[in-house]
Amino acid sequence: MEIFLFNRIDGKSLSLFPITNLMTKKFFFFLPAIFIHLSMLAQSSDATTIKKISDEIMSNSGAYENLRFLTKNIGPRLSGSANAQKAVEATARMLREAGADTVYLQPCMVPYWVRGAKETGYIKLANGTKYNLKLTALGNAVGSGSKGVQSTVIEVSSMQELHNLGEKNIKGKIVFFNIPMNPTYVRTFRAYGESGIGRRIGPAQAAKYGAIAVMVRSLASNIDEYPHTGATQYNDSFPKIPAVAISTKDAEWLSMQLKKNMQLSAFFKTNCQMLPDALSYNVVGEIRGSTNPEQILTTGGHLDSWDICEGAHDDGAGCVQSIEILRAIRALGIQPKRTIRAVMFMNEENGGRGGKAYLQNAKDKKEQHIFALESDAGGFTPRGFGLDMSEEKRNKMISWKPLFLEYGVYDIAAGGGGSDIAPLKELGTALAGLMPDSQRYFDLHHAASDTFEEVSKRELNLGAVNMAALIWLVSEYGL
Amino acid sequence: MEIFLFNRIDGKSLSLFPITNLMTKKFFFFLPAIFIHLSMLAQSSDATTIKKISDEIMSNSGAYENLRFLTKNIGPRLSGSANAQKAVEATARMLREAGADTVYLQPCMVPYWVRGAKETGYIKLANGTKYNLKLTALGNAVGSGSKGVQSTVIEVSSMQELHNLGEKNIKGKIVFFNIPMNPTYVRTFRAYGESGIGRRIGPAQAAKYGAIAVMVRSLASNIDEYPHTGATQYNDSFPKIPAVAISTKDAEWLSMQLKKNMQLSAFFKTNCQMLPDALSYNVVGEIRGSTNPEQILTTGGHLDSWDICEGAHDDGAGCVQSIEILRAIRALGIQPKRTIRAVMFMNEENGGRGGKAYLQNAKDKKEQHIFALESDAGGFTPRGFGLDMSEEKRNKMISWKPLFLEYGVYDIAAGGGGSDIAPLKELGTALAGLMPDSQRYFDLHHAASDTFEEVSKRELNLGAVNMAALIWLVSEYGL
Repeated sequence: MEIFLFNRIDGKSLSLFPITNLMTKKFFFFLPAIFIHLSMLAQSSDATTIKKISDEIMSNSGAYENLRFLTKNIGPRLSGSANAQKAVEATARMLREAGADTVYLQPCMVPYWVRGAKETGYIKLANGTKYNLKLTALGNAVGSGSKGVQSTVIEVSSMQELHNLGEKNIKGKIVFFNIPMNPTYVRTFRAYGESGIGRRIGPAQAAKYGAIAVMVRSLASNIDEYPHTGATQYNDSFPKIPAVAISTKDAEWLSMQLKKNMQLSAFFKTNCQMLPDALSYNVVGEIRGSTNPEQILTTGGHLDSWDICEGAHDDGAGCVQSIEILRAIRALGIQPKRTIRAVMFMNEENGGRGGKAYLQNAKDKKEQHIFALESDAGGFTPRGFGLDMSEEKRNKMISWKPLFLEYGVYDIAAGGGGSDIAPLKELGTALAGLMPDSQRYFDLHHAASDTFEEVSKRELNLGAVNMAALIWLVSEYGL
Repeated sequence: MEIFLFNRIDGKSLSLFPITNLMTKKFFFFLPAIFIHLSMLAQSSDATTIKKISDEIMSNSGAYENLRFLTKNIGPRLSGSANAQKAVEATARMLREAGADTVYLQPCMVPYWVRGAKETGYIKLANGTKYNLKLTALGNAVGSGSKGVQSTVIEVSSMQELHNLGEKNIKGKIVFFNIPMNPTYVRTFRAYGESGIGRRIGPAQAAKYGAIAVMVRSLASNIDEYPHTGATQYNDSFPKIPAVAISTKDAEWLSMQLKKNMQLSAFFKTNCQMLPDALSYNVVGEIRGSTNPEQILTTGGHLDSWDICEGAHDDGAGCVQSIEILRAIRALGIQPKRTIRAVMFMNEENGGRGGKAYLQNAKDKKEQHIFALESDAGGFTPRGFGLDMSEEKRNKMISWKPLFLEYGVYDIAAGGGGSDIAPLKELGTALAGLMPDSQRYFDLHHAASDTFEEVSKRELNLGAVNMAALIWLVSEYGL
């Protein structure tokens, strides 16, 4: 792209100019036109304030450098780990530096699952050669024991297929759940929801029929060599059997091999275990409201990440965006009417204890939580907010849509939230979730590929802009 | 993100469920709800056809592998180069494989600019040490000669500042245009347009005041070590002086050094030159219309790229998306009423000769070009189409907007096009440009960082889906 430029605001044309037609030497300049339109845009004071918030964040945000620290200086931070504690201390510092007038920790006991020594596994081919698998134990899973597990592999492409095969075909075997994410769903979360059944309850269901272990195809939208972890949930009525995810590339390969030879055997050894619960914390920073301080607005992300990845998109992004909201408000000297809280929730990935502790604290202190916003779908370019609240409140929020268009958010509608804020529903809190573009999320979700380098600074900041605008509007007008 | 899923179509809620609350063992499944909504979506036959196109492209697209070939097997393909010729042959093959019923080459003479041996340059600090610069000659620039250029550096932050300094301050010096892209513009093309003045006409203007050479800050929205090239345009009234871009990191550093010491000198040596025009080609593949074959719809991108990069986003993406439109139509057995042409334009980057040749061919053959669509803003997730056509035609296209929402396009409005299709305006052709999200484009535009790895397969394909839908609607209903 060289010659043409698109310059538009709010879906209306500003102009289309050949900035320079290199061959004909015509030059058109157009700054006055842009400034006239900008002043029209800023006709309402709300739009003016939001523009100031956007300019502040796009110019001076600390979110990207904070994310660099969380991912590169600290790294993986699974609940209960030393790194999780470092992340607690680091974000408390970031919140103080952002200008929060109060920063404190909310203690909560969290599951402490550890992966242990390096996991290994392979497929034994008919000719005796071993094909090493790229695998990772599923979160919260039991280990295989020191001898590992070995048996014939049986592939299923749905839970129904597992039920149809039943005990006579499954007993003593390793079940391979090969359920690809449906590529035709434009919103990738939908494919994740459907295909995720294998990882979420596959081990419990396979155990019901006597399987000795489970391998699941990674929940990934691309084909590559990274295994993607994520929590599985056992059923107390059945044995807890070891379970791993294998990379999508290996899953494609294995499925092809099984079409040639249904008697292939697999081996894997995992060393994970669940230790006793550990003490950890939510990290809370707030700016007290000027006229209605008792009314609390929460904006948050979760601080824990899986142990095999830096947790940049999941969910370092949501944490640093929430901190950035406080920083921008302070930097601009805005006095919010209601209290704004940035919360780093602990233990979203394998327990949800932070969200529950946050609710319990709110109940104990009889706090009034009018709104909560979560960013936990990646630090990608924003497209919308998903709302979980009464129709009346939803309509009020939807009426603000024109204020967001300039910043990439056009889709404000029912359907959304976040798992850390979900417990607040009990208090009648209106909930919302930032919906970034979802095309790239499941390429890296819960895998070693979820790194700082995969986050675009501008996309991350633009998410924070829209979150800050929404939080500011609620702080100004209530719901 | 683990527990919550967003499942929405067309901005309306499908549902919000805790897919699995890992702690309480509640599971909610919801497939029936999704299928009911899908069938509602597909109530109109246009929506049904577009859904088929989308499913076909998201499942079976050849765009990503074609892009891999263009970028990894061929690589940089500046007009006139051997690689550009390879790209001509490769895309002709791809068009045949996609099922075009006619594939042909349109000859055109193109500028043949070559960079020559490796460029070098440095800043000499007061203590005599040399700081090596990451630099690249601007496209179409003259070389420095074998001795290079060396002089005192004078920094300007705008063209006005250059004019204010005038000959007495500039003569004999190296002008450093340090005009950062404005980070507050959400649409990054606007910042590119404004800040690009230094690269586009800086060398010509500085020469007017007697400068011996120019260094420009790379037109990049991030701070990193990649220099970004791009065409500059001399003015025949003034000497042609050598010109390079330096990385944004070096620009920041240099500006800081100059604040401490205004007498710093710079040296650089470039070996580029413009050779005589070379023969090259546009590559055209078409599917002949069934009822109105004389009416031609063009969809295209440009095949040339700068010599220092793979040209994945700029503009391999637009080429492979255009080819994919033909492939998907063939795969689905759709008979378009009007003729659909995928065109790989040559020489967009430093001459625009392909676009002009395409117009000339159209005139020579008295072709009827009713619509042309260009994708030349990167293979990122799509957000809109910019239109350049009569109000009546524009309104017709805008009325189709609801058909695109599901696929991420919500912004269909005046203001857009593309430089390769712009010449068709002379024929009254309605023009449109795909507008992908622009947050990441200028991190890598015209730099070595514009690689295949930076393209998301799903984002690339989703762009093709929206392009194919628009092309199909025009082929069905005209304009």
